[in-house]
Amino acid sequence: MEAAGKKHEEEKERLLIACQGTEGAYSQIAARRLFPEGSFLYFRQFRAAARAVSQGMCRYAVLPIENNTYGSVRDVYRAIGEENVSIVRGYTLKIDHVLLGLKGAALGDITTIYSHEQALGQCGSFLHSLGNRTEAVPCLNTAVSARRVAEEKDPYRAAIASPECAEIYGLEIIKRNIADNNHNYTRFICVGREPEAPENANRISLMLSLRHEPGSLASVLGMFAAEGINLLKIESEPIPGRDFEFRFYIDIEGHPEDEKTGHILRSLERTCPEYRMLGYYSS
Amino acid sequence: MEAAGKKHEEEKERLLIACQGTEGAYSQIAARRLFPEGSFLYFRQFRAAARAVSQGMCRYAVLPIENNTYGSVRDVYRAIGEENVSIVRGYTLKIDHVLLGLKGAALGDITTIYSHEQALGQCGSFLHSLGNRTEAVPCLNTAVSARRVAEEKDPYRAAIASPECAEIYGLEIIKRNIADNNHNYTRFICVGREPEAPENANRISLMLSLRHEPGSLASVLGMFAAEGINLLKIESEPIPGRDFEFRFYIDIEGHPEDEKTGHILRSLERTCPEYRMLGYYSS
Repeated sequence: MEAAGKKHEEEKERLLIACQGTEGAYSQIAARRLFPEGSFLYFRQFRAAARAVSQGMCRYAVLPIENNTYGSVRDVYRAIGEENVSIVRGYTLKIDHVLLGLKGAALGDITTIYSHEQALGQCGSFLHSLGNRTEAVPCLNTAVSARRVAEEKDPYRAAIASPECAEIYGLEIIKRNIADNNHNYTRFICVGREPEAPENANRISLMLSLRHEPGSLASVLGMFAAEGINLLKIESEPIPGRDFEFRFYIDIEGHPEDEKTGHILRSLERTCPEYRMLGYYSS
Repeated sequence: MEAAGKKHEEEKERLLIACQGTEGAYSQIAARRLFPEGSFLYFRQFRAAARAVSQGMCRYAVLPIENNTYGSVRDVYRAIGEENVSIVRGYTLKIDHVLLGLKGAALGDITTIYSHEQALGQCGSFLHSLGNRTEAVPCLNTAVSARRVAEEKDPYRAAIASPECAEIYGLEIIKRNIADNNHNYTRFICVGREPEAPENANRISLMLSLRHEPGSLASVLGMFAAEGINLLKIESEPIPGRDFEFRFYIDIEGHPEDEKTGHILRSLERTCPEYRMLGYYSS
């Protein structure tokens, strides 16, 4: 009995997933696609979601890493760094804004549209087409805006959010495809307590610092280039309090067990003032 | 008379500054430091602020370009790119959060604290020290949270915002230095309709695209390194709809009229699929 109970506990723990935000937010949609059987816990800060993993409360956290609606990707990197968790998977979600209202609501009646400021901006042409009769009101996030429409029960109010929010908050999709640009993707990462070293990993995420000297970054990138290793992403940030040192977030294509790649990574680990492999995973 | 009137109009136009956000937001504080004589117009989107400049309504826009509270720096870069304005100055502002309340409010009485989600996160230790009696409530931005305290007139409510918001909204500073980390800076840029080519420029901002091939970025950075030119910032983003092309935002130290620098820039202009000098300026 005890063993069965323990197994059940483990099973539960294995599927508890931390997300930043609210139910129905794009983070949770990505998390559900990665873990259809998962249960989801919501945290206000990226770091709190990462901490839930490092402390063993959740098995994984799913966090946005490349996008323009969730604040800076650096906060996510910092959360990963501070909580010492490891990137184990990547997932790219197409962001698909729809207009949601109460059941029976008609587009012509809507006078107030709630959404995250960025989502309102991304649907600028649609909002413009509605003319002056409709006011756009910014909310903390898209899921909160959908919940607000459901709570206020006013048929003249609508929200721009994910189609999934229709079901979650009992709303109806009034209009689809309302974003100006159809190419709206957010890249998510899934972090766990330990590296999982998947054999099919094709992406390596590194955090390292370099002296602020001409050529320091060129020489690192030159090492990858010399071996034909593709660079997938690079970001720099000045390290607070150390004016002449920079931190870089670098993603490369490949697997650390590849001989040439491993050789370069070991050399960076020896020579960089700061070096950490954030994870390697299939993206 | 007419000439004088026209001159007066020009004078007015010269000093009208576009900001994203609200009165008392950190953007406006940076704008006021750069233009103590300026009048400020507020826009919801970065792009609308940039458009006010490209269309001649405002002389300059002051926009955050490196920070962790204003959403992605890329949106600012995109706004600059789309509105074809030029970076003419840089400014770094120390972010100095304070707790604001109604006149006479006491720290021990506060039960609700409004602020931007990021600012609440940055003051985590302070909030923690207040214990369970105080609830942190996220708002759209710090200035909005200060205005809310002023409007609600409840002495048990406070906001985390800039000290400048005390004066703007008639509030009192209950406590200073409440951020966990004292190294909290935001870098702003000032954009104008035309490049101003200042002689003391020490920073050049470039946007360019490169084929997604091993070594393409290493070779560009190698050109700068070979001439001893410092890299100040680098960010990459995948170009939507073109899966194997990347766009880079690169800042280097120097002046484009320096012979070696100018030579490299002309070579990039010839060879990159996309190349634009976003501006050169004193930072």
